[in-house]
Amino acid sequence: MTDRLPSWNDGPAKSAIEKFVRATTDPASPDFIPGDERVATFDQDGTLWVEHPMVTQVAFAFARIAALATANPKWKDEEPFKSVLAGDKAAIAKFTMQDLETIVMATHAGMETGEFHTSVSDWVAKAKDPRWNRRYTELVYQPMLEVMQYLRTNGFKIYIVTGGGQAFVRTFAQSVYDIPPERVIGSAGKTSYSYAEDGRGVLVKQPALLFFDDVAAKAEDIYLFLGRRPRAAFGNSDGDRQMLEYTQGNDGPTLTMLVLHDDAEREYAYGPAQGLPDVKLSPFSQATFDEATAKGWSVISMKNDWRRLFAFDP
Amino acid sequence: MTDRLPSWNDGPAKSAIEKFVRATTDPASPDFIPGDERVATFDQDGTLWVEHPMVTQVAFAFARIAALATANPKWKDEEPFKSVLAGDKAAIAKFTMQDLETIVMATHAGMETGEFHTSVSDWVAKAKDPRWNRRYTELVYQPMLEVMQYLRTNGFKIYIVTGGGQAFVRTFAQSVYDIPPERVIGSAGKTSYSYAEDGRGVLVKQPALLFFDDVAAKAEDIYLFLGRRPRAAFGNSDGDRQMLEYTQGNDGPTLTMLVLHDDAEREYAYGPAQGLPDVKLSPFSQATFDEATAKGWSVISMKNDWRRLFAFDP
Repeated sequence: MTDRLPSWNDGPAKSAIEKFVRATTDPASPDFIPGDERVATFDQDGTLWVEHPMVTQVAFAFARIAALATANPKWKDEEPFKSVLAGDKAAIAKFTMQDLETIVMATHAGMETGEFHTSVSDWVAKAKDPRWNRRYTELVYQPMLEVMQYLRTNGFKIYIVTGGGQAFVRTFAQSVYDIPPERVIGSAGKTSYSYAEDGRGVLVKQPALLFFDDVAAKAEDIYLFLGRRPRAAFGNSDGDRQMLEYTQGNDGPTLTMLVLHDDAEREYAYGPAQGLPDVKLSPFSQATFDEATAKGWSVISMKNDWRRLFAFDP
Repeated sequence: MTDRLPSWNDGPAKSAIEKFVRATTDPASPDFIPGDERVATFDQDGTLWVEHPMVTQVAFAFARIAALATANPKWKDEEPFKSVLAGDKAAIAKFTMQDLETIVMATHAGMETGEFHTSVSDWVAKAKDPRWNRRYTELVYQPMLEVMQYLRTNGFKIYIVTGGGQAFVRTFAQSVYDIPPERVIGSAGKTSYSYAEDGRGVLVKQPALLFFDDVAAKAEDIYLFLGRRPRAAFGNSDGDRQMLEYTQGNDGPTLTMLVLHDDAEREYAYGPAQGLPDVKLSPFSQATFDEATAKGWSVISMKNDWRRLFAFDP
């Protein structure tokens, strides 16, 4: 038989995926799931691509601050813009959620949706992660691309459910993940319908959040967008607990998995579960690790379960 | 050639649909649209099924008021519940939007999403429209079912975009329209994630609106859910103008149509466009009719364009 997951080492994580797909797609199995109920949801940052030491969307926002600085001369004297423009890493490391929100609103609103799309596409096509000197979209995990393709081939609808910006991720989800925009659920800002000079109806992005798609909101937004519980869910942090619980609450077989970043050599090591170093954003806490153990969620050890991390050779 | 639209009379409306489908799906046509960009959106009330003299969801809400009256003894002395319980048609006819909101919140919130789903399913399976003595889901327009099927067969993704409740419509969209829940966009209430007694993660419907999906919000919510402009849009009232404008703002060929209820004999006649009687909710105004004329939107005359209205013989 063809190995659908060649970037995975043999072990409990790989087996759990294969067993789930076989059981739910074999019409003779008691765990068979009809085609239209086959839904799988994936967190993005830290689950599908590298999120450390800074999530990619923040790198985009910082680049936009630099690009918009000439048009906003006050920024060079005004925090948090001042520290971003000065490249002051110590100050940036101390940014609060409020600081990040200010930066996101200044770079993600006040323009037509099409303009925002273009600004993301242009940046994504060029910007590179400093550690690997690769475009950020090359830093997707090859093992997860294989899982998505394996599930897709078996009739699953694949969704991204991300705390990141929905409009941001939708610009590249089709080309990077083979996921169309309507299957990307994420944090969303309000838009406002108005008319362009040529009379065309357009949507202008507003500096106000409709929802921040993290923690409990992931379950709420899955219901809002999908109207049903997923069958499989993949995450990597405390922000994904409710999504996994909500998925496991489905009747019948479910697959619930969390990626543990325990590979300092090939990627990064952080938790703080299992004594790994703590991180400010998106931690994988020991409480979540214990919940995974208690509820039978699979923890994917990046170090042990993944034969290779990326499509390229580092 | 097989007639895909047998319930339509020959005329400009039918021709517009056939011409659009041929032009956008023929690879040799300059108007060819790639498969994943083929998206069509349909309003529901008055476009896909009868909405007059009272939208079906309000009939559901009134039935729920009656069913919940014993548990809410104060309602018999408290408006707007009192008038509903007394069946006071004159008072009901004078209900404001605020009265209807009060009724919707009392009947659509304070329960788990699954309970709400069951209460809708149970009601839809039994309740009947008084004029035709048919279940409400039998009062869908056969010509529109044919359009949806014709588009679907040609690779279009079919969405409902309704001012009605998203959770309400999702309970029967699959069986009635062959539309899965994730392709129903509608007015949505907030939900709140919590835990049932057995520890299962559940969502409880809250008495607060996330968005009322009508007028400009139709364009905004299409962007929120789909991330792109539709190629075809069908409506029947002023509440659909922005959806049609937003659709027509797409690059390349689009199809934009409005149903005019001008058939008092077989259904109802209301506008007030073209001198038809006015209605309180969901009017088709002369201004919208004029916009349709100016922008080349097709107006479907129920009286002239539809050979038959329903699947059953009235």
